Amino acid sequence: MVAQSGGPTCVINASVAGVVHEAGKHMDQIEEIYGGRNGILGILNEELIDLYEEKQSSIEDLKHTPGAALGTCRYKIDFKGNPEAAAKDMDRLFRVFEAHNIRYFFYAGGNDSQDTAHKVHLEAEKRGYDLRVIGVPKTIDNDLPHTDHTPGYGSVVKYNATTVMEVATDIASMATDAGACVIIEVMGRAAGWIAAGTVLAQQNCEAGSPHMILLPEIAFDQEKFLEKLKSIIDEKKFAVIVVGEGLKDAKGKEVAADATKVDSFGHAVLSGAADYLKDIVEEKLGTKTRTVKLGYAQRAAAHFASGTDVEEAFACGVSAVKAAIGGKSGYMVTLKRTNADTEPYAWTTGHQPLGDIANVENLIPREWITPDGFLPNEKFINYAKPLIEGELNVPMVNGLPRFAELSRVAIDKQLPARGSAEDVAAPAPAPAPAAAPEAPATDAEGAAEQPA
Amino acid sequence: MVAQSGGPTCVINASVAGVVHEAGKHMDQIEEIYGGRNGILGILNEELIDLYEEKQSSIEDLKHTPGAALGTCRYKIDFKGNPEAAAKDMDRLFRVFEAHNIRYFFYAGGNDSQDTAHKVHLEAEKRGYDLRVIGVPKTIDNDLPHTDHTPGYGSVVKYNATTVMEVATDIASMATDAGACVIIEVMGRAAGWIAAGTVLAQQNCEAGSPHMILLPEIAFDQEKFLEKLKSIIDEKKFAVIVVGEGLKDAKGKEVAADATKVDSFGHAVLSGAADYLKDIVEEKLGTKTRTVKLGYAQRAAAHFASGTDVEEAFACGVSAVKAAIGGKSGYMVTLKRTNADTEPYAWTTGHQPLGDIANVENLIPREWITPDGFLPNEKFINYAKPLIEGELNVPMVNGLPRFAELSRVAIDKQLPARGSAEDVAAPAPAPAPAAAPEAPATDAEGAAEQPA
Repeated sequence: MVAQSGGPTCVINASVAGVVHEAGKHMDQIEEIYGGRNGILGILNEELIDLYEEKQSSIEDLKHTPGAALGTCRYKIDFKGNPEAAAKDMDRLFRVFEAHNIRYFFYAGGNDSQDTAHKVHLEAEKRGYDLRVIGVPKTIDNDLPHTDHTPGYGSVVKYNATTVMEVATDIASMATDAGACVIIEVMGRAAGWIAAGTVLAQQNCEAGSPHMILLPEIAFDQEKFLEKLKSIIDEKKFAVIVVGEGLKDAKGKEVAADATKVDSFGHAVLSGAADYLKDIVEEKLGTKTRTVKLGYAQRAAAHFASGTDVEEAFACGVSAVKAAIGGKSGYMVTLKRTNADTEPYAWTTGHQPLGDIANVENLIPREWITPDGFLPNEKFINYAKPLIEGELNVPMVNGLPRFAELSRVAIDKQLPARGSAEDVAAPAPAPAPAAAPEAPATDAEGAAEQPA
Repeated sequence: MVAQSGGPTCVINASVAGVVHEAGKHMDQIEEIYGGRNGILGILNEELIDLYEEKQSSIEDLKHTPGAALGTCRYKIDFKGNPEAAAKDMDRLFRVFEAHNIRYFFYAGGNDSQDTAHKVHLEAEKRGYDLRVIGVPKTIDNDLPHTDHTPGYGSVVKYNATTVMEVATDIASMATDAGACVIIEVMGRAAGWIAAGTVLAQQNCEAGSPHMILLPEIAFDQEKFLEKLKSIIDEKKFAVIVVGEGLKDAKGKEVAADATKVDSFGHAVLSGAADYLKDIVEEKLGTKTRTVKLGYAQRAAAHFASGTDVEEAFACGVSAVKAAIGGKSGYMVTLKRTNADTEPYAWTTGHQPLGDIANVENLIPREWITPDGFLPNEKFINYAKPLIEGELNVPMVNGLPRFAELSRVAIDKQLPARGSAEDVAAPAPAPAPAAAPEAPATDAEGAAEQPA
């Protein structure tokens, strides 16, 4: 079983393709290849699809398809907040596993999802249920520890850096004495990897942009910021600023935090670091300022994904299956740079215990940022540069990309509905061979079903 | 002389390439090919560059380079507001033309710029100065009359529709019972052509998005909007909404207008139609809502320009020169569809008197929009579909696009500085042959100089 969790990246489906591809080579040990719909939530609801029934061309198409093709969720098995519900969830999860004889579980996701994978691994050990759990790294945020970088990161940097180049070329051509400023807001809550990556635009950009990158790792100092910005506009007549959405003040408070809203993980909902800065710039410097907020567009930009990133994401899926077939459980696949500090870039995959990963956030080292804190330096550039290399040949239809269309053949449910009286009461059924697929999934079948 | 004005598109440089390409075929009648820096403002400041000195490969690179390679401006010769200054500007302009023996003037721009071109044409007639003025259409807004569409429109639609597909595929995969909504804000003040174009995403998009498109042409009715949105989320668990920045209420007031700010043309500065709607959706429906604001990124997205658009933009430049060489003045090049309502798409160029163009805004016909006003219909789709066809082979370096780098060899100035005592006093010099280029432009030379 493979499932996806958390916010999608434009290469998370490439990892699923890697899992399916490699699993297909081991059909002597693997009977069926199932996908869990909408991550752990869909699995709890016993919403499984038969990935072995998908066309090979559809699996290949996954390499350039954004979103999470199996569906994703932000559902958390809430051990801390609600141990009783969590124990119930775990119990249900293993009944689903048993009902469908799931013996390999591959979970693609970021920090929270690796934490879930770790807990499932520990629970399997506790129960003596033979299950091999391997986490597949996924996050545009690049904040997982023990891996050189994460699948998804290279693509978001390639797209965002290109956007910075394009916007900079546009605004540079409008620059007159009046001065002009553009602020581009990119994702990244705690870690500024995404924002920092846009520094790569400088190398190809006549306009020499971005001129400043505001990272969540560096406390925002309004006075220093305005001083630096003024000197840039005085010299160039325009400025291009990139800001990570999670920019914080000296007290660690996110400058654009909306204190009234939190997401299902208890994180504050952010809105508008760029708009926050725009108001400051227009008020204090009187410079006309426009904002760009890429939002979900940046993590879904499959039309301009990094070829390197797609290749690595696929390899992580392959490596996960190989590790599980080889007997490993409780690990996350990692990416390792095999020739750091030398050209050309070379990499391989490795494995790290899930216990070392969960909920550890990997931030940009301070020595990779210039002393004034306003730009990443050569060390960062050398690190990030190879990750955006290579382009895909995305198939086009009617002038637009063609994405994968999965048939998503549903697996017959073996259990009573989750949370029903029977579900609670029923003893876990004995392991049974997986049922043959019969009908495609329909909206009526489940809460977390993805609409066609 | 060719110059660019107004907000750039990602194909406005293709039109310049067309002008330079065609002018090069007529060097028996044309001595030199000059570019005016930063539109009419740079010409007034006598900031001219020698485009005949550019490498052919650089001119070719213009076809995939965003921004305005010659620089642009929003400067207006203000006949209404300040006739005295306007008369002074016109006088200076014709002294610059005479000093450099400018006899052909090609001005690429939108409504305001065509108005300027028209006035220059009339002034030349009044003065008996032999000048042929041809406007080259340019605007992502697609709101120029008497042309089937405008260069720049196809590319912004291709990029925006792709973004909608990608964001929709992303959010669809996260859709669970809680519901989710994304609002994507696109450009378009009076006309909703850009917003409407994203309907093309539906044809390629498993997620069937966008589900609603809010056009400036249709008065925003909050109650109807929420009713429709609720039914979409109830059915699909998610919704993708596109909104044109100039969305208006029943009284014609822009919903997101910031009354405290106006641009140099007196238009109100808009900020946040998407954020305005997000607040309504979250408050009234309680649905988690995220926004994307593409801003300048959409008009600068050369990495994903429409091949058809680039070809047409280039052809408009070619046609402008042909018309002028043929003796025409006071016209704008138009694009004509030669086989409306039939496949395959075919087009040619035409010419329309500038007097018919200036300050007329072409809106979407009401019969191209569904009765409820929330989506464009088949008539619009048939119109827009061919305009996004075709892709460019943008050269890539280090994983990022490579844009044109012009050498921008400056033409020696023949006149005293604009506004200086000598400028006002000096009689217009007799026409002189253009000076040989000597030094590249530097920042010190002029206010509107584009930083390197």
